[in-house]
Amino acid sequence: MRGFPLRKVRGTGVLMRMRYKLSGLLSLVVTLVLVACPVAVKAADPLPSWKDNGTKDAIMEFVAKVTREGGKDYLPPEQRIATFDNDGTLWAEKPIYFQLVYAVDKVREMAPEHPEWKDQEPFASILKGDPQKALEGGKPALMKLMAATHTGMTGEEFRSSVSEWLETARHPKTKKRYTEMVYQPMLELLRHLRANGFKTYIVSGGGIDFLRAFSEETYGIPPEQVVGSTLKAGYELRDGTPVLVKQAEVALIDDKEGKPVGIYQYIGRRPVFAAGNSDGDLQMLEYTTAGAGPSFGLLLHHTDSGREWAYDRHSAVGRLDKALKQAPEKGWTVVDMQDDWRVVFPFEK
Amino acid sequence: MRGFPLRKVRGTGVLMRMRYKLSGLLSLVVTLVLVACPVAVKAADPLPSWKDNGTKDAIMEFVAKVTREGGKDYLPPEQRIATFDNDGTLWAEKPIYFQLVYAVDKVREMAPEHPEWKDQEPFASILKGDPQKALEGGKPALMKLMAATHTGMTGEEFRSSVSEWLETARHPKTKKRYTEMVYQPMLELLRHLRANGFKTYIVSGGGIDFLRAFSEETYGIPPEQVVGSTLKAGYELRDGTPVLVKQAEVALIDDKEGKPVGIYQYIGRRPVFAAGNSDGDLQMLEYTTAGAGPSFGLLLHHTDSGREWAYDRHSAVGRLDKALKQAPEKGWTVVDMQDDWRVVFPFEK
Repeated sequence: MRGFPLRKVRGTGVLMRMRYKLSGLLSLVVTLVLVACPVAVKAADPLPSWKDNGTKDAIMEFVAKVTREGGKDYLPPEQRIATFDNDGTLWAEKPIYFQLVYAVDKVREMAPEHPEWKDQEPFASILKGDPQKALEGGKPALMKLMAATHTGMTGEEFRSSVSEWLETARHPKTKKRYTEMVYQPMLELLRHLRANGFKTYIVSGGGIDFLRAFSEETYGIPPEQVVGSTLKAGYELRDGTPVLVKQAEVALIDDKEGKPVGIYQYIGRRPVFAAGNSDGDLQMLEYTTAGAGPSFGLLLHHTDSGREWAYDRHSAVGRLDKALKQAPEKGWTVVDMQDDWRVVFPFEK
Repeated sequence: MRGFPLRKVRGTGVLMRMRYKLSGLLSLVVTLVLVACPVAVKAADPLPSWKDNGTKDAIMEFVAKVTREGGKDYLPPEQRIATFDNDGTLWAEKPIYFQLVYAVDKVREMAPEHPEWKDQEPFASILKGDPQKALEGGKPALMKLMAATHTGMTGEEFRSSVSEWLETARHPKTKKRYTEMVYQPMLELLRHLRANGFKTYIVSGGGIDFLRAFSEETYGIPPEQVVGSTLKAGYELRDGTPVLVKQAEVALIDDKEGKPVGIYQYIGRRPVFAAGNSDGDLQMLEYTTAGAGPSFGLLLHHTDSGREWAYDRHSAVGRLDKALKQAPEKGWTVVDMQDDWRVVFPFEK
């Protein structure tokens, strides 16, 4: 193979020096352009853990069309609000919601100070090693469990407790930290949306303070972009220091109809992108995709019993039935975890 | 006066063409530098409506020290949360809260559909042209007024109604639009904070939906950065369209202790800067300035009976008594409207 011929140098000495200066200026220009426009460089695939098929195309096309200035579907940045469910959408939710594992672990830890618990449900069953039975008491049992483990302390104390627990607790099946049980393709989707001017929010049935303990580090979502089920808080001075104390009174159950209510209350603007995985997300998707402009509804279908879990309409945790039936008619994109994802968890890579 | 001598042109024709190219490149470089580094240009005074005295210095020094990388008081951008009361802090609140004027105007507008109101308080007094008397009924009267004018409609309908009212209503004294009754120095402060990486929030006793109708256009504060008193909302399908309907049940009274509660609930992070003007802001300032790191509490004292109003401890609207007494001990900066502000309202300029 022959090299390109070098151009013959011609001209005077002055001209040569001039060219030298010119070349210095040119590198300056190149440097400035690179500094000023890092995004101008052709980006690598922003969704490498998504298989190259119609699902990925639909996501990429939506983001492209709403960010194309002058296009008919263009959305100004302030309207680019994207909301994500957490349990089963950003991280796993099997065998039971991770926040429940935290509550159960806390009951065990607090038991020595509460001798009365060994005769009181739901605590007795938990202490006997049967949390499943404890939860058979339904909502009242759950509320007792939450009141015992999620109230009375300050918000800061609660978050510290959750952070510590997340450092040490391990998932029963994978033996990984719970914050490692997040979906790699969804982390990429969050980043891709943010890189395109979207504000990404969590809108979860889980507790808002529980989520805020890890959302920034794990998902890059700051506390002020987390909406979740909320207990009332009281403002107090403890030893002269102002604190907020978590109370055993519900302010918002951020599930089903509660999701659009939470969005309306906390964000005050209709999202244009919503992602969920269960019937608890139906109303959020419905509200999001009923807007006048372009919108995107994403429903994650857990179909992968090998790498994760396969469940839908018969599952107590994360039941997906009505929303899956409505998806075609509503134009929601159903993500088939087995068919659409190359990788599920980051630790597989 | 003599002009600068033109440099003698020397060199060949080739050299001339080279210089031509060089000058083109130079303008490209200048353009790129200007595009890339608009902030590198020495900024003009960001607070021109503040007099050059100790109050302005204190604000400027706080912003400088928390943004100085490597300095002992440096705060990373995500911690730069600034919260502002609205009534009496960002816009005026005399003779009565502007939102009350809206409610009174709505009662008059709706009266033909409510013949029963002419015998029912607080409506009867309003319709007789005595809103002051109507409000003597205290909180129950106020709640009736709010229920009649702020509930039953969808959130979008309510916001449209407020927007329309703000277009047409005029302040009784200045004859200006209410959105013109904003404080020019505070608009500059909001901008200065944002230019330095702060997220600016409204945290107001006023209604969250009322505020969201104008906060973005008037203050550059988007709906998701507005915290206010909140009525519950219900999710419904009206003619198949999902809507949020405002209900006559209070979710949060965002005043006094309710302000840190609202901050904790909506933002989930302690502010480092808080501005208020009344005892209703005491707890917000207390909570903000009790943080471990650097913080700033600003208390606006209405001392200017000429350009605005002068009031403090004896005022029913915007009473400032306890907070003013605590300011020196707590290290809060008291802004004296008459002494510290060159301009009060934008229309004075």
